[in-house]
Amino acid sequence: MKNYFSSDFRLGVLGGGQLGRMLLTETQKLDIYTVILDGNSNAPCAQICNEFHQGDLLDFDTVYNFGKQVDLLTIEIENVNIDALDKLEEEGLTIFPKPKNLRTIQNKALQKVFYHEQGIPTADFTRFALKEDLEKAVLENTVSTPFVWKSARFGYDGNGVKIVKSIDDLQNLPSGECIAEKLIPFKNELAVIVARNKAGEIKTYPVVEMEFHPEANQVEYVICPARIDETVANKARKIALDVADAFDFVGLLAVEMFQTEDDTILVNEVAPRTHNSGHYSIEASYTSQFEQHVRSILNLPLGNTDSKVAGIMVNLVGAEGHTGDVIYKNIEEVLKIEGVTPHLYGKKHTKPFRKMGHVTIVNTDVNKAREIAQQVKETIKVIAK
Amino acid sequence: MKNYFSSDFRLGVLGGGQLGRMLLTETQKLDIYTVILDGNSNAPCAQICNEFHQGDLLDFDTVYNFGKQVDLLTIEIENVNIDALDKLEEEGLTIFPKPKNLRTIQNKALQKVFYHEQGIPTADFTRFALKEDLEKAVLENTVSTPFVWKSARFGYDGNGVKIVKSIDDLQNLPSGECIAEKLIPFKNELAVIVARNKAGEIKTYPVVEMEFHPEANQVEYVICPARIDETVANKARKIALDVADAFDFVGLLAVEMFQTEDDTILVNEVAPRTHNSGHYSIEASYTSQFEQHVRSILNLPLGNTDSKVAGIMVNLVGAEGHTGDVIYKNIEEVLKIEGVTPHLYGKKHTKPFRKMGHVTIVNTDVNKAREIAQQVKETIKVIAK
Repeated sequence: MKNYFSSDFRLGVLGGGQLGRMLLTETQKLDIYTVILDGNSNAPCAQICNEFHQGDLLDFDTVYNFGKQVDLLTIEIENVNIDALDKLEEEGLTIFPKPKNLRTIQNKALQKVFYHEQGIPTADFTRFALKEDLEKAVLENTVSTPFVWKSARFGYDGNGVKIVKSIDDLQNLPSGECIAEKLIPFKNELAVIVARNKAGEIKTYPVVEMEFHPEANQVEYVICPARIDETVANKARKIALDVADAFDFVGLLAVEMFQTEDDTILVNEVAPRTHNSGHYSIEASYTSQFEQHVRSILNLPLGNTDSKVAGIMVNLVGAEGHTGDVIYKNIEEVLKIEGVTPHLYGKKHTKPFRKMGHVTIVNTDVNKAREIAQQVKETIKVIAK
Repeated sequence: MKNYFSSDFRLGVLGGGQLGRMLLTETQKLDIYTVILDGNSNAPCAQICNEFHQGDLLDFDTVYNFGKQVDLLTIEIENVNIDALDKLEEEGLTIFPKPKNLRTIQNKALQKVFYHEQGIPTADFTRFALKEDLEKAVLENTVSTPFVWKSARFGYDGNGVKIVKSIDDLQNLPSGECIAEKLIPFKNELAVIVARNKAGEIKTYPVVEMEFHPEANQVEYVICPARIDETVANKARKIALDVADAFDFVGLLAVEMFQTEDDTILVNEVAPRTHNSGHYSIEASYTSQFEQHVRSILNLPLGNTDSKVAGIMVNLVGAEGHTGDVIYKNIEEVLKIEGVTPHLYGKKHTKPFRKMGHVTIVNTDVNKAREIAQQVKETIKVIAK
């Protein structure tokens, strides 16, 4: 085995945001020398990695030259220059997740086509090279409202997704490649994180439930374990495994799914990396998703994905009407509550809805944890000075 | 409340070893800007803190000048220049633990006198300004063998402590201030970590047991919870609280104790900081000792000290006969076992008995954890390349 620990081995990471920052906790624990590339010199990882490089993740030369300086390359964000990764891989660099998987996943239209080809259950959809083609299809009634418009590229956190009730809703959306997806009435949005190493060892984390705000279309709580029937949970874990198998994936794959009214499980989309829906694992699981990511890409044995206790995550996003130097109002109040751990991502500047951190609530009883989570959400506020 | 998070607040830490490194995980999590002073430019913290200063921790000017650049000062090692801390405190800097506590604890003779004055149960002892005075006392039979010689200054990890069976055993020991302590036959060595903040909130972690190697006089396993009677455990927690009260302590205080044959609890010594006996808490406790240290010195509410699961720690020390660039032999074998987490301290060079890292084993069953701990200890080896 290659000696990764306290050695001259260099792990490269594309992206230096909060996911990278939480990954660094694990590379520090295992003393793996970590080199990070990010466009922002104040990125959350900048000060605390072993070596920070500033540069554009979408620029071929920047990514290629960065890759030449590391022994193994991974990502914490999927929007990176894949052509550079292909060339690096051709030249012998180990890259996990694999560039070909990233290419498929980076484009939501390709991702949907992939599910269709592989027999993975997913909502029906039609693919359009341009938004104008979709508009034409709506006018000609080959696509009927309501449907879900999804931009093929660069969507994240609800950006690039819109429920279209009439053709007017398309007006202010960006042009470019997109899909029109059948609107699925679902009773739960679930997620399963799958870890797989090069040797083929594969494990799933428990199914988590994303609880949405009843009015705003925003995930409020990620709850582990999901409060669902065991049969449904097993079905969701099985489908997540199928997706990872279909990709022949190495690394961490977060599979987001809908549980429909009749308990059908449909894959919504995947993320080829550590994921917001797995943050609870830092406190609640035997192996956090970040440690598992390290284990999987280095072809180490995977850790136990079971939970020690129930875990709930609440995102800390910038409050509306607040832009400027951040203050975590009432953080000391939430620290008074047992089993509550804030994670702040190292961003000095807040603006409305910016992801600034998260809070994990652990408890032996998931319902008690859910009550505390609500209390936390109602107490702590991300405001400007 | 002062705003410590994602702000311009500067936390200073004297010492940049492994305890500082594990503290950084927590200051990163809470985005507290952390500035570290250590004599070694390759100290475990050097690359991953926000700001690293190289300098001698025992030099007045170095410590004083460092203190002038931070908003609150703490330590991860107690052997620092206390005169500089006194001056900084006089000039208004907040320092936790308090310099006066560090002065008492830094000198084992003063520490013992303090217990005596405060009515804290501890083994009987006699104090000597010089080793030669002790030799004279032995010759004159005012001190009788066997006894335990302890150097007043700079002892750590078994250095500065020796069981003296005859006067010849004193020969190769350093001169200087020392104590002769009554040799106590004990059945267990226990430890309790107490956390206290400025507001006076105080909590104890569960009692842990230090299991020694049957032949070598070396702690092999730290076991939480200690496999002892609850009455004895409560007595130990009570005495640890008494010690913290007596010191009017702020921060983390690790209290090491003997459980004698008749279940008397005697205080052996204390450490005014996070401690090897609390490393299990990272994986096993609701609040790790390192997060608790941050909470206590910043006068934040203290976290829950209960355990989620049983935890055992095995130290990773350099194997005999191995000096050079480190290799963690069979680390992949121990990663195969569920509930096993290695922590490597970022030291590139191993030598016999150097503390290079530790491994935590967690399990719902402490006896099962103990079995796995033995398996881990027999498998992983810290050798040179």
